[in-house]
Amino acid sequence: MIATQYEGDKTFSVLEKEIEEPAAGEVRIKVAYVGVCGTDVHIYHGMMDKRVKMPLTIGHEMSGVVDAVGEGVGGFDVGEKVVVRPLDNRGEKPSDKGISHICEDLKFIGIDSPGAMQQYWNVPAFVLHKLGAETDLKLAALIEPLAVACHDVRLAELQADETAVVLGGGPIGMLVAMVAKEAGANVIISEVNETRIGMAQKLGFTAVNPTKVDLVEFVKKKTDNRLAEVVFEVSGVQAAVDVMTEVAGIRGRIVMVAIHGQPKSVSLFKFFWKELKLIGARVYEPEDYEAAIALVAAKKLPLEQLITAVKPLTNIQEVFASIDTNPDGMKVLMEC
Amino acid sequence: MIATQYEGDKTFSVLEKEIEEPAAGEVRIKVAYVGVCGTDVHIYHGMMDKRVKMPLTIGHEMSGVVDAVGEGVGGFDVGEKVVVRPLDNRGEKPSDKGISHICEDLKFIGIDSPGAMQQYWNVPAFVLHKLGAETDLKLAALIEPLAVACHDVRLAELQADETAVVLGGGPIGMLVAMVAKEAGANVIISEVNETRIGMAQKLGFTAVNPTKVDLVEFVKKKTDNRLAEVVFEVSGVQAAVDVMTEVAGIRGRIVMVAIHGQPKSVSLFKFFWKELKLIGARVYEPEDYEAAIALVAAKKLPLEQLITAVKPLTNIQEVFASIDTNPDGMKVLMEC
Repeated sequence: MIATQYEGDKTFSVLEKEIEEPAAGEVRIKVAYVGVCGTDVHIYHGMMDKRVKMPLTIGHEMSGVVDAVGEGVGGFDVGEKVVVRPLDNRGEKPSDKGISHICEDLKFIGIDSPGAMQQYWNVPAFVLHKLGAETDLKLAALIEPLAVACHDVRLAELQADETAVVLGGGPIGMLVAMVAKEAGANVIISEVNETRIGMAQKLGFTAVNPTKVDLVEFVKKKTDNRLAEVVFEVSGVQAAVDVMTEVAGIRGRIVMVAIHGQPKSVSLFKFFWKELKLIGARVYEPEDYEAAIALVAAKKLPLEQLITAVKPLTNIQEVFASIDTNPDGMKVLMEC
Repeated sequence: MIATQYEGDKTFSVLEKEIEEPAAGEVRIKVAYVGVCGTDVHIYHGMMDKRVKMPLTIGHEMSGVVDAVGEGVGGFDVGEKVVVRPLDNRGEKPSDKGISHICEDLKFIGIDSPGAMQQYWNVPAFVLHKLGAETDLKLAALIEPLAVACHDVRLAELQADETAVVLGGGPIGMLVAMVAKEAGANVIISEVNETRIGMAQKLGFTAVNPTKVDLVEFVKKKTDNRLAEVVFEVSGVQAAVDVMTEVAGIRGRIVMVAIHGQPKSVSLFKFFWKELKLIGARVYEPEDYEAAIALVAAKKLPLEQLITAVKPLTNIQEVFASIDTNPDGMKVLMEC
């Protein structure tokens, strides 16, 4: 089989390997498609070299079919379509209070252990979710990021007819916007890249450029001064942190989706004054995966339009290089 | 009657005035005790001169008895003990979404209109809460700040046996600690003033000085690594903002009680990583007043010990001057 490995220094190798038998408790998956996540790009840039044990096959956004079943694994048939929820919580402790998906010693499969950018992949059976036989495996490769969006919207306790402002219209922001719209919210996307604004508008969203339009005044007008009930911060930049407390109305909920590597200046006064809530949201729980799987099965979301390219896995080096030089792109899949 | 007025420039006047009849919809209160709030001290320092229309009688932490009832007011008898919830929400708008107590055009009685530092005080009837005949009027002057604490603990959704860390052991921090303890929580107070630490310990609290003890390690040990389920930030300083995201355990709730006049550096990463919540909490709602009244009536909290001095109203100038020079003091009442 073909496998790829991150070797450090912005370099991937493509190699021929023996197909391995699944160990006890494992399932072997024949990988169909694997998406490139922002985290994969961070790894490519060498920003996670301390954590990633090179050489490593990375990748965690995927779809595939069951190819072989290890000892002691029940309930899976060869040929069944599946996706992986890449969270290994076997190190969970009592101090994690049962909150498994972000337990302190969580291992992220595809970062802390081998991932999906190969033709066959052995994973523990407990990370699998089954797909219906009709499910499109290309779209199914988006289930992992879509589950992130489902988690964010669920933790926001978003209600129909509420106004949700999404700060940042990249792949996750766009998926959050889709899930929020599907939940009945009035969605406004704030994004600085004009190509992405155009794409959001083509998808039917109200999308504005906050460097050209006063976002707070815009939302005020749209909401009869009520401002946003929910704000999703998906951008990771200070300007969005500044505006998030302004664009949220009284008792607004702000969901922190972005990974802010450095502390940011935050108006804690606005949290006090308007009784705002900030809600941290990370990865997903099993129910978010099931919600994402149901959304893909129902074909309600225009997910195809987020896929900007599908390339062969063997082109991995070129794929990562092109993502670097194309800020307009959304989701790139590799076919395995 | 005797009334006091803030005249600007750290100066109060004490004057003889005619007792006024209550207007329609109003009740005249014979004020018994009035407490000095941190906000009153801010006014004294001239920090709110833009908002306060001088000369103004200030004060909003009080107890008293009904002295006369204006036209159209029902349900109050002369002599009944009452406290005032000093929130005038008559400017409420649809964009306030029914969240009256912090509506955008809220007027705070005693800051935006005349307050309680006088012998007789006319207020709209809708701000009154009745006290039982047995209620101690001295302790009842603490109902307003106690209602703040009840609001904070209620919004935290604090459960019995949870660990609550209170950052800041001033009057509000101490009241929050008392209400949290009454709710069954294990309370740890973090405070830098040694006199206040001693007072907290005398009240039966675990209290530590974070400049001498590693607060996070201390709480870890106390909780078997679970850290705090709830953190109350009552101090208003950067060091507490730094530690609040560290001392909160997985999915911990941080209640923002303090008024941070300037934006602060916040680890948004920790909110994401541990799925923390930040909950803004301001003043109180009617049910918080009723909870505070019930706590005072039940005599369960050691509130007397928070009262460091009781002085005649006519000594107002000396009272404010002495608060300035005594960082150890807790709550000073004036007798009217």
